[in-house]
Amino acid sequence: MVATHMDWNRRFACRTRHMQRSAVRELLKVAARPDIISFAGGLPAAELLPVEEVRQATDAVLMRHGGRALQYGESEGVAELRDWISRKESPPGAALSRDNVLIAHGAQQALDLLGRVLLDSGDTVLVENPTYLALLSAWRPWEVRFAPLPSDANGMHLDRLPHVDARHARAKLLYTIPNFQNPSGTTLSEPRRQEVVQRCRDNGIGIIEDDPYGELRYEGDAPPSLYALDAALVRGSPEMSNVLRVGTFSKTLAPGLRLGWVVAPRMVIDKLVQARQATDLHTGTLSQWIALELLEQGTLEQRLPAIRTEYRHRRDVMLAALAEHLGAWATWTRPAGGMFLLVTLNTCISTAELLPHALKAGIAFVPGDVFHTDGSGANTLRLNFSNTPPDRIAEGIRRLAEVVSSRSVG
Amino acid sequence: MVATHMDWNRRFACRTRHMQRSAVRELLKVAARPDIISFAGGLPAAELLPVEEVRQATDAVLMRHGGRALQYGESEGVAELRDWISRKESPPGAALSRDNVLIAHGAQQALDLLGRVLLDSGDTVLVENPTYLALLSAWRPWEVRFAPLPSDANGMHLDRLPHVDARHARAKLLYTIPNFQNPSGTTLSEPRRQEVVQRCRDNGIGIIEDDPYGELRYEGDAPPSLYALDAALVRGSPEMSNVLRVGTFSKTLAPGLRLGWVVAPRMVIDKLVQARQATDLHTGTLSQWIALELLEQGTLEQRLPAIRTEYRHRRDVMLAALAEHLGAWATWTRPAGGMFLLVTLNTCISTAELLPHALKAGIAFVPGDVFHTDGSGANTLRLNFSNTPPDRIAEGIRRLAEVVSSRSVG
Repeated sequence: MVATHMDWNRRFACRTRHMQRSAVRELLKVAARPDIISFAGGLPAAELLPVEEVRQATDAVLMRHGGRALQYGESEGVAELRDWISRKESPPGAALSRDNVLIAHGAQQALDLLGRVLLDSGDTVLVENPTYLALLSAWRPWEVRFAPLPSDANGMHLDRLPHVDARHARAKLLYTIPNFQNPSGTTLSEPRRQEVVQRCRDNGIGIIEDDPYGELRYEGDAPPSLYALDAALVRGSPEMSNVLRVGTFSKTLAPGLRLGWVVAPRMVIDKLVQARQATDLHTGTLSQWIALELLEQGTLEQRLPAIRTEYRHRRDVMLAALAEHLGAWATWTRPAGGMFLLVTLNTCISTAELLPHALKAGIAFVPGDVFHTDGSGANTLRLNFSNTPPDRIAEGIRRLAEVVSSRSVG
Repeated sequence: MVATHMDWNRRFACRTRHMQRSAVRELLKVAARPDIISFAGGLPAAELLPVEEVRQATDAVLMRHGGRALQYGESEGVAELRDWISRKESPPGAALSRDNVLIAHGAQQALDLLGRVLLDSGDTVLVENPTYLALLSAWRPWEVRFAPLPSDANGMHLDRLPHVDARHARAKLLYTIPNFQNPSGTTLSEPRRQEVVQRCRDNGIGIIEDDPYGELRYEGDAPPSLYALDAALVRGSPEMSNVLRVGTFSKTLAPGLRLGWVVAPRMVIDKLVQARQATDLHTGTLSQWIALELLEQGTLEQRLPAIRTEYRHRRDVMLAALAEHLGAWATWTRPAGGMFLLVTLNTCISTAELLPHALKAGIAFVPGDVFHTDGSGANTLRLNFSNTPPDRIAEGIRRLAEVVSSRSVG
């Protein structure tokens, strides 16, 4: 009876070599120390979350539905919540139905499921450069090739589309966050949206439109979604869409409910449901009923103005502080909404190497290299402005400037 | 400007050929009609779910934690809930810590994540025959080979272990539900547990112990878990364990909260966390805090006796009705706990072909072939007894016997 030491490390699947602890999420742990002013996370302001409304909604839901609200549910999600989302997401001239909607355990799961049913090893995916880190983490295990599209203040450049991938097979998908992108904060302009939609359709490239921040617009008019522009090309038929749209309640209601969704042709929803049944069966029932109750009570319309006002103020404070303290050392984006902006240092300092010094000075950010798929961005950093009170934002940027200037001189 | 019809069907990944809508879950939709007596699902009795307790717990949690209970959280799960689980799951002589626990979005996600980090294409996994359908669905996309171990009233036979796989590479994992197995209802005997644990260790085969039903024991004493037996071989060291243990609150608190867990060495938890960060970030925060509040209030100990009493009664009613009506046509298992029993028809009727006739007669069950990995089991069917009131159970079995006898004669 020998008890051999079991080395699980030698049992891990090959694909785990693509998995690393997310730098952002590991940072959040350090950054959660109260002495740190953290611009690192992507969290909404906890003080704006609808605590009392959720309490009342839970009461109402349990009173009305009893055990049904705590029971197993359908993989597609609660039908009434899918109805609500299908109404909200229907573009002009198109009528989505609940059959075009899958409720996911957060938008991140929606992206994970899409990768699972759409991506084969060797497939090429076009992404903005920089792009959302957790999308890269979610899809890398499928051994896809990410083809970066250079981006500017108006979003991605199209001149390399579709020929970006001439060396390899034609791209299968294009992934974009068109509104207040993570990490850059920039918004894809309407002319570029028109062109992306048409050229992707012409070239058989499917579009994943990820729109977590669209409701958080602080100025200007919203351009039409890629989904709406594509729908116009096929007279609004949801079954003919070349765009799959991903949404979430995490930035507007509460991230802790873990509720996101996919809008797609039924055949795609059907395949996602099959994947879902093998993954985690369905999204939490109670969370879905609570969200539906909040939506029917009008919580979203009631609270969004206050959220927008506060986040706009925080953005303005950050932009002013950057102009005051960091103007000599860096440039940055000016987002019209969302939660993030991207700073580019004029010098060739690596922001990853800067981070330990920043943490010592009591501030946190996310080094920008991890968002880039072409090895660039080492001198960039992402700042979140939604989760820090205005006075702390100003102080944090002052400290950041000190750290940058001292390292630049040294 | 041509609007080509986009055929998403041609874009699906190769692995989706392993995905089908789960027969069980699709059935549940028909079976949800009020005129159907359904033995098909695996649902707890909705009338036993702790509705008022959840309402009070939600109040308490939101009062105490405010926005924190609605905010993003750590991928590992809420620390205090991991502490609770680590205490509950510590076997005699071993002390688990929160670092040995990952909270998942239901036990199904725990199984999915384990497959993701452990399984490569071509790996062999030993499973009981029959075994849990959704485990097969979760792991098939990784293109593993399932090697079935014949099972009887005392669980799996070991005579083919480890030589079951002589033709191929050595098996990597053994997956088992040792208590009141799904779908058979049988329990792995203590001598076989001892032998499985030792032989898997000797042969370098890791064990996944899935125990959703262990708390639902209606008679007799519980044998030690495989985890505890393995721990005894390494003096209780959690880091040396050759068993990864999966648990859930879905059968004891509420499935709609979607809360399961994995107990494992830290290096495995660490890898699961990496996979989790790319999958869906973390489990719903509010659900976790609600569960912790329920556990600290003692809801589990208070309610389990009533659940056990009611389910035992339902099992007894089903066993008596089977003896009264189906004795001439079939044999069946006699589970000492859990939610299911397996019926084997004496004739070679296909239960899959029987099902439409059963639905016409107003009853539903799950045909047993889907649980078998060797093509057998066509004349078996799974019956759930937890989610149907006793008088309806008696009536349902009477109808089932009518359908079976009429098809046998015809």
